Amino acid sequence: MQFYSEMLRTHPRGMQIQNLDMLAECIKTCFECAQACTDCADACLAEENVKQLVRCIRLNQDCADICDATGRILSRQTEPAVEIFRSQIQSCITACDSCASECEIHAPHHEHCRICALACRMCQDSCNKLLKSLKQ
Amino acid sequence: MQFYSEMLRTHPRGMQIQNLDMLAECIKTCFECAQACTDCADACLAEENVKQLVRCIRLNQDCADICDATGRILSRQTEPAVEIFRSQIQSCITACDSCASECEIHAPHHEHCRICALACRMCQDSCNKLLKSLKQ
Amino acid sequence: MQFYSEMLRTHPRGMQIQNLDMLAECIKTCFECAQACTDCADACLAEENVKQLVRCIRLNQDCADICDATGRILSRQTEPAVEIFRSQIQSCITACDSCASECEIHAPHHEHCRICALACRMCQDSCNKLLKSLKQ
Amino acid sequence: MQFYSEMLRTHPRGMQIQNLDMLAECIKTCFECAQACTDCADACLAEENVKQLVRCIRLNQDCADICDATGRILSRQTEPAVEIFRSQIQSCITACDSCASECEIHAPHHEHCRICALACRMCQDSCNKLLKSLKQ
Repeated sequence: MQFYSEMLRTHPRGMQIQNLDMLAECIKTCFECAQACTDCADACLAEENVKQLVRCIRLNQDCADICDATGRILSRQTEPAVEIFRSQIQSCITACDSCASECEIHAPHHEHCRICALACRMCQDSCNKLLKSLKQ
Repeated sequence: MQFYSEMLRTHPRGMQIQNLDMLAECIKTCFECAQACTDCADACLAEENVKQLVRCIRLNQDCADICDATGRILSRQTEPAVEIFRSQIQSCITACDSCASECEIHAPHHEHCRICALACRMCQDSCNKLLKSLKQ
Repeated sequence: MQFYSEMLRTHPRGMQIQNLDMLAECIKTCFECAQACTDCADACLAEENVKQLVRCIRLNQDCADICDATGRILSRQTEPAVEIFRSQIQSCITACDSCASECEIHAPHHEHCRICALACRMCQDSCNKLLKSLKQ
Repeated sequence: MQFYSEMLRTHPRGMQIQNLDMLAECIKTCFECAQACTDCADACLAEENVKQLVRCIRLNQDCADICDATGRILSRQTEPAVEIFRSQIQSCITACDSCASECEIHAPHHEHCRICALACRMCQDSCNKLLKSLKQ
């Protein structure tokens, strides 16, 4: 069950962002990406070639922290500050792009990096769409 | 797509916890509960009777912080410390129970509290099952 | 005792950012601001006029999440991605400015808002300095 | 400047916990330990012998997540739930003890592990004192 969609629907003030599906998708991909990055950092740490994965672990951690913060902020619908939405979504796009680019290097050898890169690209894509709609 | 299940499956060390489905369910309900509590705190803040919901907002915030930490810790499979699993799952059960009990008071009047109480009880239940299996 | 200064000093790779004092100051003010915002949100929730403080509570929560993520990311010195530093510091500046502006409105009546606005402005200032040094 | 002490002092409801110094000390050591653990994980990742530090990195991450959640929860003074305080402080004691024990093994060779073990023991100690006072 996806509680956040129900939660968004039952919020007393209604949505401040017009496109509810786009917002829900962005929140979902932020939390999925945070989770994938946490898992990928942990899996990299357990690999034989951990020394070749140090940059990947670091970017995983940064991306997890940023996606988690972005997902929390977008989840709040009471008195939102659109300038914070915009700057944090922009930072999330940057982090997802950097982390995905690193994970894609290791994807041929590590399945967890392949999955994590996919989660990062999905989050980056949904953030790009939401940011574009917020700029109109 | 639920990345964490795939991630658990592709981890280089395999599972340290035997019952993979039980673990995956517990991680899932921890993150869902954290999200529901963040959303419920925000929705309560927007209600006309916010002064009657102060205790609910506070417990939502505590429960969100604890479920998020518990979900992150359970997600890591490299060199896990079972004593930390046990104590943090126990704290998660306590927080979910307290938050659910408060949300259930407001559930007849606020749909977000009804949904949040449900998320808390599901998390409490899956934590109880996992804790029991870790004590054997 | 401030562990982060010692930690930065003893890091095996040395600093990737040349101005160690500027970096340490920015990390310090990020975590102090996150803490002040968490405290201010909680204090606002306990005020008689909580309904007039809803926007303040919301911005406190956003600013706390963003400052915490920024502080964690800046604390890591292994394989840093400067583009992530820049975008996240920029978002931190935006959040601190928005939160401080709201807290300053309530500062004459609520001491916690006065202190929180001060913490936000200090964080905003140290982020601005670090961002400027990273752009050179 | 330590904002949390001023914040605790200016809270509209006053303290729910009688011993204000003991509470302020516990909050302080929780956030310091979270920071030290984040830094130690990052420094370990940069070491030549990272493969020998995998368990340390993992416990650093768990301890950071738990100390951060504990610090946030203790910082909130509005409508606190003492059963959540107790269970989360207990989990924090467990995490600090496990992380300190591992860091102490590496302390002779890595200065960051020596400092981190110290931060963990200080947090464990202040949590033990606060927990004892909450049980009376």
